[in-house]
Amino acid sequence: MEPMSRALDLARQAADAGEAPIGAVVADASGEVVAEARNRVEELSDPTAHAEILAMRAAGAALGSSRLTGCDLFVTLEPCAMCAGAIAHARLRRLIFGAYDPKGGGVEHGARVFDRPTCHHRPEIIGGVRESESRVLLRAFFQERR
Amino acid sequence: MEPMSRALDLARQAADAGEAPIGAVVADASGEVVAEARNRVEELSDPTAHAEILAMRAAGAALGSSRLTGCDLFVTLEPCAMCAGAIAHARLRRLIFGAYDPKGGGVEHGARVFDRPTCHHRPEIIGGVRESESRVLLRAFFQERR
Repeated sequence: MEPMSRALDLARQAADAGEAPIGAVVADASGEVVAEARNRVEELSDPTAHAEILAMRAAGAALGSSRLTGCDLFVTLEPCAMCAGAIAHARLRRLIFGAYDPKGGGVEHGARVFDRPTCHHRPEIIGGVRESESRVLLRAFFQERR
Repeated sequence: MEPMSRALDLARQAADAGEAPIGAVVADASGEVVAEARNRVEELSDPTAHAEILAMRAAGAALGSSRLTGCDLFVTLEPCAMCAGAIAHARLRRLIFGAYDPKGGGVEHGARVFDRPTCHHRPEIIGGVRESESRVLLRAFFQERR
């Protein structure tokens, strides 16, 4: 399955579990899935358990390296500052994300982590991939909780 | 033991284990230690395994909540953007850190995560606490690796 399709499936699973509907997949340079995750903040009582963080941690464990050089991250929402910082630490090759997030994003909004002169690694960034599918999930989730 | 003393001990343990010498402690409002950790990036092959992240994850698990409201984080070095983002998610009351980090910091330098209008939580911040002790550890560690 194409990595962003899988990430969207994971986002749906997160919503079904009562978590913010965000999914992430780490793929290697040949497109093979190395690790995947969905948001688990509430389930794990873990403020850092965003889909991206869990996917990168699993990818590091799978590859036996704290650097995911050559790997790409597919995620259904623009990463926050925490996740953008983790992406820089992991030295990912590419970041492909779905919906833009003016309120919580840290890539094209807010902290703009990769745009700072002190940022030690900037991946290639492709935003807006299957954005509307991601946005539908997010909107449904947050409307239910109002 | 005073939390920053304990964080400095953990930083020394990190250096002994070949990890960047950084330690962190989460204490509750009464000063009781809830969780502690040192850097384990290499040991765990985990790009996110900074002392702060591990301490906040352990604190969330210990308290059964993804929000560490009322808790304080003591860490020997200014947090990076990733860790600052996590601190905002965790809703920590106070961030007390040791050495300032012009190259890698994301609080007083770089992404300045808490200074962005979109940041949803800014803790009280006290920097430079026992800075020289932290700096001695960091300098010794990075000099050895040159």
